[in-house]
Amino acid sequence: MKQQVRNVTTMEKKSRSEMEDVQNHKDHREIPIDHVGITNIKWPIKVMDRQNFSQHTVAEFTMSVDLPKEFKGTHMSRFVTILSDFSNDITAEKLPGIIREMQKRLDATEAHLKVDFPYFIEKKAPISGVKSLMKYDCGFLITANGEDLDYILEVDVPVTSLCPCSKAVSDYGAHNQRGHIIIKVRPQKEDKDNFIHIWLEELFTLAESSSSAPIYPLLKRKDERFVTMQAYDNPVFVEDMVRNAAVKLREDPRISWYEVSAFNDESIHDHKAFAVTTWTRE
Amino acid sequence: MKQQVRNVTTMEKKSRSEMEDVQNHKDHREIPIDHVGITNIKWPIKVMDRQNFSQHTVAEFTMSVDLPKEFKGTHMSRFVTILSDFSNDITAEKLPGIIREMQKRLDATEAHLKVDFPYFIEKKAPISGVKSLMKYDCGFLITANGEDLDYILEVDVPVTSLCPCSKAVSDYGAHNQRGHIIIKVRPQKEDKDNFIHIWLEELFTLAESSSSAPIYPLLKRKDERFVTMQAYDNPVFVEDMVRNAAVKLREDPRISWYEVSAFNDESIHDHKAFAVTTWTRE
Amino acid sequence: MKQQVRNVTTMEKKSRSEMEDVQNHKDHREIPIDHVGITNIKWPIKVMDRQNFSQHTVAEFTMSVDLPKEFKGTHMSRFVTILSDFSNDITAEKLPGIIREMQKRLDATEAHLKVDFPYFIEKKAPISGVKSLMKYDCGFLITANGEDLDYILEVDVPVTSLCPCSKAVSDYGAHNQRGHIIIKVRPQKEDKDNFIHIWLEELFTLAESSSSAPIYPLLKRKDERFVTMQAYDNPVFVEDMVRNAAVKLREDPRISWYEVSAFNDESIHDHKAFAVTTWTRE
Amino acid sequence: MKQQVRNVTTMEKKSRSEMEDVQNHKDHREIPIDHVGITNIKWPIKVMDRQNFSQHTVAEFTMSVDLPKEFKGTHMSRFVTILSDFSNDITAEKLPGIIREMQKRLDATEAHLKVDFPYFIEKKAPISGVKSLMKYDCGFLITANGEDLDYILEVDVPVTSLCPCSKAVSDYGAHNQRGHIIIKVRPQKEDKDNFIHIWLEELFTLAESSSSAPIYPLLKRKDERFVTMQAYDNPVFVEDMVRNAAVKLREDPRISWYEVSAFNDESIHDHKAFAVTTWTRE
Repeated sequence: MKQQVRNVTTMEKKSRSEMEDVQNHKDHREIPIDHVGITNIKWPIKVMDRQNFSQHTVAEFTMSVDLPKEFKGTHMSRFVTILSDFSNDITAEKLPGIIREMQKRLDATEAHLKVDFPYFIEKKAPISGVKSLMKYDCGFLITANGEDLDYILEVDVPVTSLCPCSKAVSDYGAHNQRGHIIIKVRPQKEDKDNFIHIWLEELFTLAESSSSAPIYPLLKRKDERFVTMQAYDNPVFVEDMVRNAAVKLREDPRISWYEVSAFNDESIHDHKAFAVTTWTRE
Repeated sequence: MKQQVRNVTTMEKKSRSEMEDVQNHKDHREIPIDHVGITNIKWPIKVMDRQNFSQHTVAEFTMSVDLPKEFKGTHMSRFVTILSDFSNDITAEKLPGIIREMQKRLDATEAHLKVDFPYFIEKKAPISGVKSLMKYDCGFLITANGEDLDYILEVDVPVTSLCPCSKAVSDYGAHNQRGHIIIKVRPQKEDKDNFIHIWLEELFTLAESSSSAPIYPLLKRKDERFVTMQAYDNPVFVEDMVRNAAVKLREDPRISWYEVSAFNDESIHDHKAFAVTTWTRE
Repeated sequence: MKQQVRNVTTMEKKSRSEMEDVQNHKDHREIPIDHVGITNIKWPIKVMDRQNFSQHTVAEFTMSVDLPKEFKGTHMSRFVTILSDFSNDITAEKLPGIIREMQKRLDATEAHLKVDFPYFIEKKAPISGVKSLMKYDCGFLITANGEDLDYILEVDVPVTSLCPCSKAVSDYGAHNQRGHIIIKVRPQKEDKDNFIHIWLEELFTLAESSSSAPIYPLLKRKDERFVTMQAYDNPVFVEDMVRNAAVKLREDPRISWYEVSAFNDESIHDHKAFAVTTWTRE
Repeated sequence: MKQQVRNVTTMEKKSRSEMEDVQNHKDHREIPIDHVGITNIKWPIKVMDRQNFSQHTVAEFTMSVDLPKEFKGTHMSRFVTILSDFSNDITAEKLPGIIREMQKRLDATEAHLKVDFPYFIEKKAPISGVKSLMKYDCGFLITANGEDLDYILEVDVPVTSLCPCSKAVSDYGAHNQRGHIIIKVRPQKEDKDNFIHIWLEELFTLAESSSSAPIYPLLKRKDERFVTMQAYDNPVFVEDMVRNAAVKLREDPRISWYEVSAFNDESIHDHKAFAVTTWTRE
């Protein structure tokens, strides 16, 4: 069976001007819409990288705008047009420019842009010094409301957490597990569209030093010995992980707001333990 | 290799009183925690059912409380103890009782309880009348803050959505796809711990009538003919779906707040289109 | 905007006999199809339960048949009709009957039925004896080929695994984590359509005794002490877990084939370690 | 609370030679292991690209070897060492070299390497010619057994599928949805370690031309008109999609084996329809 493809000339006979722009119709339901847009769209991007200037990765985008009650629909294809116009060279530095384009081309007051991506750093094992690449899931969330711009960085840092209770009540050993510390921060503003730069790498280190021990892709036996004992020496609950991170984040004057979560994939249970704390600098 | 199991008598020699209650230690970091609890824990429940009085299903629970800055940790096991004490007979009606227990046994001001579960109704095909079971993902979110109780119902309703633009610009056909309308509502209160009853089934119907056509697990050919033409006769954007639902929710005096989202698994794209609208009755 | 619903009388005017049965057309591409069917369909079921006779749960079904090269399509709706005819009372014992119906009503030589569901048992903590419900993901896979029937049970058992290498090289402590032991077994046949009964509970116990320690939803401090030390006393690699389980499965004459996998959510890495071993009794 | 980090000199006092190599112990359980390795590890790679010579993406690796019954464990860290040695420049062309290293460094007869990654091509809308990036999920599966090498390419191609039955029985319209055609092919060998090159792009086109219409990230109104009518003109069941693809794959002498699956995210149901067909050239 052959896929039929109509003669393109015939297909084009309905000229663009004759084709109805349904989205532009007036709407009478009196319901404004907070977000209308697209999600789960993947696109290659470049991210600034403390070690190597920049790295290539693949991001998932969510892009939306508000829609006043008078309009029937948004022109969804314009979101992708904007990505295409910036491609193949989307970098984190261009995200404010992208969101300004979203406001302009979609004729919107508010615009929201979420970009989630895996990010790699070269990590040295603590004793042997062997190097490997470690992946962290990261995100940027940018919101524009008229002239205002808001910006949040997000990192998801896998760590080892060792249970203080299990250590305290047992003659030997202590249950430990993979945990995740998720940090969202809002940097202070430098000026209208610019925020003080915070390296993703700084947040990775901050999270790891709030846990029982960092995680590495590659460890030799002497490294495994080191992290095993490091974890045993630094027991933490999820409560401790969010508090340890929170204390450090408050001390950093570049940060005006944070939300810190910690999740433990409990090794003695089939559920997760979690904790969340948020704070705004006054 | 045989798994070693220590002599229980030996294991018990450290009497309970000698075992350190690490969670009860004082904490000096001055960081209050908004949520501390457990998530991804599954438990069988019963839910009130308009057709058959009640049905059995399996729920995923998230349970958390706040933790004042003075305390090192929460006694996480108490969340599971509460579930066990109510088991095997957890019903939606008992959720306010469960959250009050959470406040009491964990000595907390705030408590949060999220219960997500698949829920089934018998659905008749529109022409043939053949019956089958249709699954909807539902959730209850209950929050207690001191004496106050808050309650939100959530349903995720799969629907057919047919694109008005595609229909308008094409000589024949129109792209359509599976969409999801997600409705969250806060019912009005009857009294302190009681909310006006809203059937999950009412929200399913409301969402389906806001789409191009409902979805059914079982359709005969004449039913397929019916829903195909019903969808073509009722084209909707995601914007239309959230507005259609919003108009109906505002007309229902039992509802004091809603959030309506719609997602389309676009059949002509590999990304989703979405819209979100929220509202609070004044 | 009101959803249009056509007059049902009009909709029915195309009588069933006039409606084309496209699936019954002849096909000339000469391509037989191994599997054609439906997947991701949820349905409530009952499963035999060693403690309480039976329990209600919610299953996900995959149902398929083969399609000879001469036929254009399968009547997919018949799969759902079969589920509806057995509903609301689908039990594991009825699965052979369901697959025979699939062969008959879809006029197929081969039929495949996969049923996946969460299953709960009441579990006692090892020292305190406190009870709670523990969820295990389970599955039945039934295949019919003409007269032949094949049957596989599957269980996914979360466990604690403690690393022998980490214990051996460290002065104290040892990394451990949540692992999963997945056991698939083919029981011996009693007669044509009947297999020797193996309780899911037997496989849970077998898997747990192949790990460092079982997992429980609810543990008091003295139980946590017990399982912490039990895990430390029984270090296992993923290789050990599959071998420990394999040794026990070979000793069970009711089992004619197995596949055992183990996965560790490594607490010192962000990747998983895994092992797989299969065996057929000769 | 400060994370304790032991004095590194102290940590190193147990010299490497004193540290037990537990994995090298003899095993007496008489259970050979088919696969032992690591999974869910992410690493940046480069892939040959028909348009731009090569592109950067992020892959998920699964790496395993067999383990004879005499050995207690595999040295899992060696898998990551191999990735690190090839990094930052892992390309598809180097995968045979990587699997040979796996056999060598892990002293194994069999080795398996699965690499899954998103891959982007620039796609032109059918009428307007506007360009955008389209993502396809792809994979390479390489197996070495002694001298033998086996190689399978895999692509997951999202498409539009329009139901022939719905079109035939309805006066107007036809339900359609996003579908996925998943093609796995084994290319013919050129010589011992080399397979005839097949472009991923060729498989994308083959799959898309087996569906009702291709999917695009960016479509203008005249393009949407085109693909809407193209889909209506080319109705296909999942059975048709796998057969259409199968016919083309058999005609390609470079291909010695295939498995083609098609899944429809049914727009009138909440479950998926699927079909699978496999074939080996004789």
